[in-house]
Amino acid sequence: MADREAVTPRTTDARRRHDPRVRGFASDNYAGAPPEIMAALALANEGHQVAYGEDDYTVHLQDVMRSHFGPLAVTYPVFNGTGANVVALQALTDRWGAVIAADSAHIHVDECGAPERVGGLKLLTVPTPDGKLTPELIDREAYGWEDEHRAMPQVVSITQSTELGTLYTPDEVRALCDHAHERGMKVHLDGARIANAAASLDVPMRAFTYAAGVDVLSYGGTKNGMLFGEAVVVLNPDAVRAMKHLRKLSMQLASKMRFVSVQLEALLAKDLWLRQARHANTMAQRLADGVRGVDGVEILHPVQANAVFARLPREVSERLQQRYRFYFWDEAAGDVRWMCSFDTTEEDVDGFVTALKEELGR
Amino acid sequence: MADREAVTPRTTDARRRHDPRVRGFASDNYAGAPPEIMAALALANEGHQVAYGEDDYTVHLQDVMRSHFGPLAVTYPVFNGTGANVVALQALTDRWGAVIAADSAHIHVDECGAPERVGGLKLLTVPTPDGKLTPELIDREAYGWEDEHRAMPQVVSITQSTELGTLYTPDEVRALCDHAHERGMKVHLDGARIANAAASLDVPMRAFTYAAGVDVLSYGGTKNGMLFGEAVVVLNPDAVRAMKHLRKLSMQLASKMRFVSVQLEALLAKDLWLRQARHANTMAQRLADGVRGVDGVEILHPVQANAVFARLPREVSERLQQRYRFYFWDEAAGDVRWMCSFDTTEEDVDGFVTALKEELGR
Amino acid sequence: MADREAVTPRTTDARRRHDPRVRGFASDNYAGAPPEIMAALALANEGHQVAYGEDDYTVHLQDVMRSHFGPLAVTYPVFNGTGANVVALQALTDRWGAVIAADSAHIHVDECGAPERVGGLKLLTVPTPDGKLTPELIDREAYGWEDEHRAMPQVVSITQSTELGTLYTPDEVRALCDHAHERGMKVHLDGARIANAAASLDVPMRAFTYAAGVDVLSYGGTKNGMLFGEAVVVLNPDAVRAMKHLRKLSMQLASKMRFVSVQLEALLAKDLWLRQARHANTMAQRLADGVRGVDGVEILHPVQANAVFARLPREVSERLQQRYRFYFWDEAAGDVRWMCSFDTTEEDVDGFVTALKEELGR
Amino acid sequence: MADREAVTPRTTDARRRHDPRVRGFASDNYAGAPPEIMAALALANEGHQVAYGEDDYTVHLQDVMRSHFGPLAVTYPVFNGTGANVVALQALTDRWGAVIAADSAHIHVDECGAPERVGGLKLLTVPTPDGKLTPELIDREAYGWEDEHRAMPQVVSITQSTELGTLYTPDEVRALCDHAHERGMKVHLDGARIANAAASLDVPMRAFTYAAGVDVLSYGGTKNGMLFGEAVVVLNPDAVRAMKHLRKLSMQLASKMRFVSVQLEALLAKDLWLRQARHANTMAQRLADGVRGVDGVEILHPVQANAVFARLPREVSERLQQRYRFYFWDEAAGDVRWMCSFDTTEEDVDGFVTALKEELGR
Repeated sequence: MADREAVTPRTTDARRRHDPRVRGFASDNYAGAPPEIMAALALANEGHQVAYGEDDYTVHLQDVMRSHFGPLAVTYPVFNGTGANVVALQALTDRWGAVIAADSAHIHVDECGAPERVGGLKLLTVPTPDGKLTPELIDREAYGWEDEHRAMPQVVSITQSTELGTLYTPDEVRALCDHAHERGMKVHLDGARIANAAASLDVPMRAFTYAAGVDVLSYGGTKNGMLFGEAVVVLNPDAVRAMKHLRKLSMQLASKMRFVSVQLEALLAKDLWLRQARHANTMAQRLADGVRGVDGVEILHPVQANAVFARLPREVSERLQQRYRFYFWDEAAGDVRWMCSFDTTEEDVDGFVTALKEELGR
Repeated sequence: MADREAVTPRTTDARRRHDPRVRGFASDNYAGAPPEIMAALALANEGHQVAYGEDDYTVHLQDVMRSHFGPLAVTYPVFNGTGANVVALQALTDRWGAVIAADSAHIHVDECGAPERVGGLKLLTVPTPDGKLTPELIDREAYGWEDEHRAMPQVVSITQSTELGTLYTPDEVRALCDHAHERGMKVHLDGARIANAAASLDVPMRAFTYAAGVDVLSYGGTKNGMLFGEAVVVLNPDAVRAMKHLRKLSMQLASKMRFVSVQLEALLAKDLWLRQARHANTMAQRLADGVRGVDGVEILHPVQANAVFARLPREVSERLQQRYRFYFWDEAAGDVRWMCSFDTTEEDVDGFVTALKEELGR
Repeated sequence: MADREAVTPRTTDARRRHDPRVRGFASDNYAGAPPEIMAALALANEGHQVAYGEDDYTVHLQDVMRSHFGPLAVTYPVFNGTGANVVALQALTDRWGAVIAADSAHIHVDECGAPERVGGLKLLTVPTPDGKLTPELIDREAYGWEDEHRAMPQVVSITQSTELGTLYTPDEVRALCDHAHERGMKVHLDGARIANAAASLDVPMRAFTYAAGVDVLSYGGTKNGMLFGEAVVVLNPDAVRAMKHLRKLSMQLASKMRFVSVQLEALLAKDLWLRQARHANTMAQRLADGVRGVDGVEILHPVQANAVFARLPREVSERLQQRYRFYFWDEAAGDVRWMCSFDTTEEDVDGFVTALKEELGR
Repeated sequence: MADREAVTPRTTDARRRHDPRVRGFASDNYAGAPPEIMAALALANEGHQVAYGEDDYTVHLQDVMRSHFGPLAVTYPVFNGTGANVVALQALTDRWGAVIAADSAHIHVDECGAPERVGGLKLLTVPTPDGKLTPELIDREAYGWEDEHRAMPQVVSITQSTELGTLYTPDEVRALCDHAHERGMKVHLDGARIANAAASLDVPMRAFTYAAGVDVLSYGGTKNGMLFGEAVVVLNPDAVRAMKHLRKLSMQLASKMRFVSVQLEALLAKDLWLRQARHANTMAQRLADGVRGVDGVEILHPVQANAVFARLPREVSERLQQRYRFYFWDEAAGDVRWMCSFDTTEEDVDGFVTALKEELGR
């Protein structure tokens, strides 16, 4: 037991442990935060602020978000995207509810079953060619509301931009919302990359959310440049109850919430969100342009946001991964995903394209 | 529908919205973060780092934490305390498990049922005089392991410092752990204020955790000065499995984890954690000393960490709350809680004591 | 692998394997079913009936139950008492709801955490002297509806007769219901032994349920003589939604529901329920009368239904258990529980009292 | 309030309320129970038996089930099929586990989300042509065990006979089990109609369960002629723990368990199970033979058990439903399901075929 109490001397302060020059295309959450975000944290620091959301930053954030998402919007900052989604979906469902989603949706494939385990939610998934639901695809699962043997479809959940980097037009979202509402269902939009979508569509975010009939939104801040933090934005307050309780019981209530809210304010008060997203999208286009037409590389989906999906010989990808980090999307098929972020540079892209061509040429 | 698309012009950047001179004693999470934490965030920023925990800061954090918590410790950064507790308790229980805790425990009274709802956990709570369990108190619920009608007691969860600002000695923790282990149960320690406990006891944190036999720890960073972030620290790796999956499904997996880990490093690499905790404790002592013996005020529990519990006439408290924010603990009884934090100053305390006396004197 | 496929010859039909002359006082569910119940099963058998509740017996049962529980009553047959309770409590709560109950309640101590695990329910329990809640006891947990850190008290759950064999008068239930309703809470009554309560109080069951303001009832059939089966009876249909979905997702939907419903009809269409309960109560009184005043035995609670709680020397109990099966209630204190059932005979009771005296006399 | 206490006079005993001559092909659980089952209930009745599974019938049932399912089998009687499945799947998974199943599986489409809600289980479903999984189909979801973003595939669940009335051969099951086991997964078999499968394959039930490597079985009694009752049969005891706790917390623990066990004994002690299943299968073949080749009717799947799936003009089905109850399987396509049960007669079938031809001829 003696050595259980031995104390190792600790003498080093925190220090930089990584090389910021190492770059990659693995994910937009490999990036850190821009100076505006760091400055915002400093603004909100010092002194005492009420915890758990009654601070001045969270109060003010309501107005900022309403300027984007309409006069009814109520914003609940949370920690991360899975948390935002599961809080939002619980808010829109009863204990017996089910959620219709594309089978590529993050809630289905990337959240370790959190919707099912935390929310007791049943997901009714539909295969899609491009990550996008349509009224016809929704109808494959939208039936049987009276049948107690079936989990009751109560929500349609869509993702904008989708997991495949594709986009819904505002009209497409409106058609989905109308379709869902006519059948008594609500609509959730997973906006982990909502800024990229708006930038690419060149419309305000409200055009494909509030104005199109979306009921609750998961607003994505982290991939857009925050250190951490997202928000559940209720666009239709009649559709939900007890949001604060749901956030708390879902373990998404930040005590020092000012530090989430001020980051969201920094992004959204003017146009930082848009500049960052637009830049990431432009870099993805540059990357796509750089590899389009190159022998041995096939671009798989329309490049509409900040992701490029491509198919190339697996061994080429594996060599390239020695130089730049990125992920296989479908290892068997040789499909890869290249993500650009707010801090991707033209040099990053050009270097990557050059490296790709070199590896293809071997 | 037209006005649903109207865009409100946005012209203001983020700016300071609060008055840092306003002070209070409501909670240690009303404070922000010290300069060392802000500096640490800047260190970890820029460039690309692998998301979800493979970054250099999270990797290094393992060593830092082992220097405090023993050579077996494995550290899983998470977002908040409820998240840390619920991940830890799920890790230590089967689907049929129950957790024995004091009826004042945070997991029972302050988490909106997250242990039950997220983890399906049954809590078996015991009234305590001072927030502390004893072997005898544990035995009120530690029985019936073979009885399928009863949720199976698998974990004893204690809090250090307790919700009432009291402390377990290392020997007391060891006795609880031995008692629990002999009965086949594991021990969880909710260390939301672990630094305050160690500072007050003047022992290393390992003395009442790893060295005393605790299996899994919820390490508290936010109340000790982080912007956000806590950690589940597994002290006995044989007691758990699939921690990463549990963290993810509990919606506590930070994508840009480097920003949690570097804050923990800044606190723990040298002695920032200790200095901050010691200061908060000293301020609580100063406050207690200032009011002890004052007519009309009764101090309720031993002041062993950074909390002072007191009983005073309710109308006095209500007038005082106009000048300094703090909470009633038991409104009917007139009990209040005054918390000190790393940034509480001697002037804060002295001003508060003076104000209290003024209000008592009216 | 070969012997994995060997077939053991099977030549015996089902046959009686137990000795019906062995009697005990362990539980009212050690008894089987009276001839009327067996006859009812035969009536409902043969031919085809719609499954899952649209059969003629379940349809007719609605009228039978309304004759007891008022014109609004809607009855949902289920399998067992835990199922009835958990369906009922889910129906009366939101995802963020909590249930106030006596700490001796079956839902807290005897259901292996099913309310928490299946329903995600938080139980707020209160110690009681006799298993009965009062408005004052309720108020120990009835607060903080707006506080998101606290599970929201939405239901008061009482048991009639209680786990300790005591009874609420109709006026007591009405006072509890008024108290709960004024605070926006609903009332659930666990009626696992509701028939015994009505028989003892000598009032219709509606007097302390529908007429007193109870919202949802768990109706107990098994302990009253059914082979299996209970029912959730909704007395206030405005308080619930989607009951059929809740029953199904709680795995309490019987396919051949006619066989539950016809048993309930056999009990309740005339007065079989009452005769059986009255008999069990009478036997408990006889037992209590037989031991009252006997040196070395103390009767612990008022004997108001079919249970007798007593304290006697532990070694006497252990010898007596060799002759009649019954349970310790509190092994440390030497407390035991003796239950009478519809088929307990005067000879059973007298034999038991004699045996008890013999063992005491040794 | 007065009329809340009015008592409706009740004067009728239970009586037969249905016409046993009305027949249909809607479901095998529209049938009641054969005389042997009713006799078995009478055998087990009278006198006192220990509740919750220590009775003589449940004890003896272990031997009966081992004669069918191998020497290691441990049998846990439960109430219904959904309960059996959810208990079994919880037993085979950790909190982070997922279950691979056909997208037509009962656990996915017919249990109102009970696996997700009660067990927190994630289902990974695969489209199949005929309701049957193959190793290749399993591999569409069997990957990513180390990836915490993905629910961990821990169980393959198959159904025998399938929801589409098709069958796995013993070799096919063995191949699936080997495939699953090699990847560290366990195998669950939903045997709601296991007797029909064995009868059709003309092999002992163990041939495609224990001998083929299945770990846990949901044994179906209700559709085979019981009033109610199924069983979880653990074939590989090393794969599970705390089954009794899991059954209880899943609200599937019968107090008077003798009445479930004696029915299972009556079915399985000799060959009642087989005779009943064989008869139902024969009736389905007779039905299929009767309509095969009839203009306007197409039989959709191989008729291997007691179900016939057919496609015919929707208006013909609707007219036919006026005369015999049955269900649409896919209303849009005009697909229907006709089920035969142990009590379907040749006259039933012939009358139905005649009626079908009449309606087709209009």
